[in-house]
Amino acid sequence: MRLLAEWGGGKAILANVKLDICQQFGIDFPLFAFSHCRDVVAAVTNAGGFGVLGATAYSPEQLDRELSWIDDHVNGKPYGADIIVPAKFEGKGEGLSKGDLASRIPDDTKAFVAELLSGHGIEPDPTPRIGSPMLSGNTGRELLDVAMSHPIKLIANALGVPPDYMIEAGRAAGVPVAALVGAKEHALKQAAAGVDLIVAQGTEAGGHCGEVSTLVLVPEVLDALEAAGSDIPVLAAGGIVTGRQMAAAVAMGAAGAWTGSVWLTTEEAETAPHTVQKMLAASSRDTVRSAGRTGKPSRQLVSDWTNAWAPNDGGRRPLPLPLQSMLVEPVLRRVDALAEQGHEGAQALATYFVGQGVGMMNKVKPAREVVLEFIEDYLAAAESLGRTIPD
Amino acid sequence: MRLLAEWGGGKAILANVKLDICQQFGIDFPLFAFSHCRDVVAAVTNAGGFGVLGATAYSPEQLDRELSWIDDHVNGKPYGADIIVPAKFEGKGEGLSKGDLASRIPDDTKAFVAELLSGHGIEPDPTPRIGSPMLSGNTGRELLDVAMSHPIKLIANALGVPPDYMIEAGRAAGVPVAALVGAKEHALKQAAAGVDLIVAQGTEAGGHCGEVSTLVLVPEVLDALEAAGSDIPVLAAGGIVTGRQMAAAVAMGAAGAWTGSVWLTTEEAETAPHTVQKMLAASSRDTVRSAGRTGKPSRQLVSDWTNAWAPNDGGRRPLPLPLQSMLVEPVLRRVDALAEQGHEGAQALATYFVGQGVGMMNKVKPAREVVLEFIEDYLAAAESLGRTIPD
Repeated sequence: MRLLAEWGGGKAILANVKLDICQQFGIDFPLFAFSHCRDVVAAVTNAGGFGVLGATAYSPEQLDRELSWIDDHVNGKPYGADIIVPAKFEGKGEGLSKGDLASRIPDDTKAFVAELLSGHGIEPDPTPRIGSPMLSGNTGRELLDVAMSHPIKLIANALGVPPDYMIEAGRAAGVPVAALVGAKEHALKQAAAGVDLIVAQGTEAGGHCGEVSTLVLVPEVLDALEAAGSDIPVLAAGGIVTGRQMAAAVAMGAAGAWTGSVWLTTEEAETAPHTVQKMLAASSRDTVRSAGRTGKPSRQLVSDWTNAWAPNDGGRRPLPLPLQSMLVEPVLRRVDALAEQGHEGAQALATYFVGQGVGMMNKVKPAREVVLEFIEDYLAAAESLGRTIPD
Repeated sequence: MRLLAEWGGGKAILANVKLDICQQFGIDFPLFAFSHCRDVVAAVTNAGGFGVLGATAYSPEQLDRELSWIDDHVNGKPYGADIIVPAKFEGKGEGLSKGDLASRIPDDTKAFVAELLSGHGIEPDPTPRIGSPMLSGNTGRELLDVAMSHPIKLIANALGVPPDYMIEAGRAAGVPVAALVGAKEHALKQAAAGVDLIVAQGTEAGGHCGEVSTLVLVPEVLDALEAAGSDIPVLAAGGIVTGRQMAAAVAMGAAGAWTGSVWLTTEEAETAPHTVQKMLAASSRDTVRSAGRTGKPSRQLVSDWTNAWAPNDGGRRPLPLPLQSMLVEPVLRRVDALAEQGHEGAQALATYFVGQGVGMMNKVKPAREVVLEFIEDYLAAAESLGRTIPD
């Protein structure tokens, strides 16, 4: 923390960070932290960054409780919510119930999963469950209403162009709407749809991601937006787990960084304990972009689970969104529980969304410390780049 | 060129760029340019960067001519040569002739290629040829001897750990040896083997590449080397086609940038004209990491050719190095010639190595102008990052 101390302690420096986006969002440092865990969201917001709660896995009632808890813990500081409303999914527009959707999960895919488990010494679940169709958009509108009833300062949609009602609700309430994109063509579409903030997310990101790397995508998106006459701010995402990578993105013109993976190994995170150990031990090559969890390509830890699905050689073709996660999520939660009890087959199968930055996530830390290290590292990188140019 | 002009014209600024590597290599700006074209190598070196001739496709006699031409055109300024000596290849250590190797190309793979061509309206070659086993390492030693007889200032090996004789020859002549790596484990191996410069090349790179992105690989390699007590300089490679991306890499601790793709659309380059047009029109998503050209995964323009080979869905499994390129290179040169004549089938098949940065390569320019734009853009990016931190 040399630089932080030398320059007068956290707050004084941070207020000086000359990024417009800090003024726009009322933050000290343009580090956006996506997490499913309210403790991480609050800790990042309280440390001067901007926490964003991943809301999609919650029911409307649960989400209301989580956001109320955050309200009680951030003292009016800004935070946001992320609600995935995918543009395409099985049964879209048919008004299907969970049961209707569940009936579309083919028996032979269920049998394939059962066989994969039994091959790892895991008996059939005596009370088999089907997960909620959380990636179907069925509950997106309700979740949005709940989120907007809290003092959120950002609403994000992590998959495709946000639906009109989301953009309209944001505009009516003065809450900026952010969208994640993995290609410049998508950024142009989002800009035309009226979003206020674009997150350009490279292929190295954990979770759903495209194929273009962050180092290429960020300047390509900025160039395309400029050519289209748009000055929407762009956050860089994908692989960013250190302040020097964030500085790299800002040097290319990004307004800040959007992060996710790095919070999975913080003290506050709810990541399954065995998976945390896998992440700490993993190198950047231990992730894979696989559709075996949600039906759409998303980056995860390599495991016997991801190896069993395409595009891995000989892997089974997954079901479309949201059927794959309805089938798979309860199974993988059971696998996590068994892995925690020392079950070796379950440990070989255990996996979770994480980006290539996992290779640099080597220690469990409080989320606040991660933010401060980001700032310190960012300042050091900016200073060091400055030393390479003439005075 | 606002900054260049404001700051007193090229040379004066460049001499001030405070990067140790500039002193080490006697250059003004740490932009390394890999090209198979001597004109590009000389132009980059003459503009203050460091040109590196890709030597592997040449016979020893041809290489001698090319390097003599460069010697005549750079007035003692520094340049280097890149010789691929892969660690693993078909027939390694068996002392096989070209004919021996050619006999190992299976007839059914030849038939598959003939069918792919005829499906695109291309008749069988009346005088079918088999390419030279240039990736077999057979001629690596001879090429090295030729290169060392010229005043080269760098010898690079783009695939695996350089053979002992290369490191020894470099050391004896005081010529630094560089090695390209795509993973931190490889960087540690290279450091232990005694290389002088590491090029950390991300998955977005054209040609042979690994799976880790540049934004993740560069800091991960630097951390690993530091932990191992090594202070070997690391150049960043993969996707870098602009000065702002180079500044990003330097902000993360890289000593400079190693580039390749960006030179393919320069006026000097020998890229097939139809392929140049494809590159100018391509976005970053129009490349694919495919083994269909050399037998090892390398990034290329997507075309009907790359679509026909694994890992594309249903694609044919390629032959091992060097058999695949012996079979394929003469075919693809014929395809290039037909594409140039307006043959539509050939145009659909035409492809070449290029990285994801191709999305930002939108205009043919002289190589010297590319260097100057890199410098300008680098300075602007470093200035702009500096403006985000306190004075």
